[in-house]
Amino acid sequence: MKPPYYAVIFTNLQTNNTEGYTAMAEKMEHLAKQQPGFLGMESARDHLGITVSYWKTTAAIKQWKQNLDHLEAQQKGRSLWYSWYRTRICLVERDYEFTAS
Amino acid sequence: MKPPYYAVIFTNLQTNNTEGYTAMAEKMEHLAKQQPGFLGMESARDHLGITVSYWKTTAAIKQWKQNLDHLEAQQKGRSLWYSWYRTRICLVERDYEFTAS
Repeated sequence: MKPPYYAVIFTNLQTNNTEGYTAMAEKMEHLAKQQPGFLGMESARDHLGITVSYWKTTAAIKQWKQNLDHLEAQQKGRSLWYSWYRTRICLVERDYEFTAS
Repeated sequence: MKPPYYAVIFTNLQTNNTEGYTAMAEKMEHLAKQQPGFLGMESARDHLGITVSYWKTTAAIKQWKQNLDHLEAQQKGRSLWYSWYRTRICLVERDYEFTAS
């Protein structure tokens, strides 16, 4: 991953209904990794959930958004699992890394 | 917050030494909110920590990076609290939101 590439920042709040959520999240992560242009994914949750996925191009993001299994997951997300979310499509212009010696 | 604006995605792994970390994180959040061009901040942690801050311009990001108190926090982060981190500077091109009705 060398900039420029794209990041999708997905921040969300869950409802009290988490039935089926974990299985679907794992399925979607597995499926995302198989998509053309997929570069990586990072997630964390405490009160707020943040998932950032990385992609080569906006075309790859669009293709993943329109994947049929993913569309079904998005629909269930809106009707069952999420009370709120925001999705941001971003161009990663620069990055730098630190690793403790 | 209407695109275009900037996001700084900070993903990190902590060391076992968390002494002073929470106080510093709270201090930095408080201070960041006072900076010119600051738009917002979202954080989550389980194994991985993800903090995303939002800014009007790259100049605002640079100014915050060079803030003296923040420089001290960054130095302590590298020597004490983080075993690894990656910082990404991103242009937010599009965003959309969902709120359950």
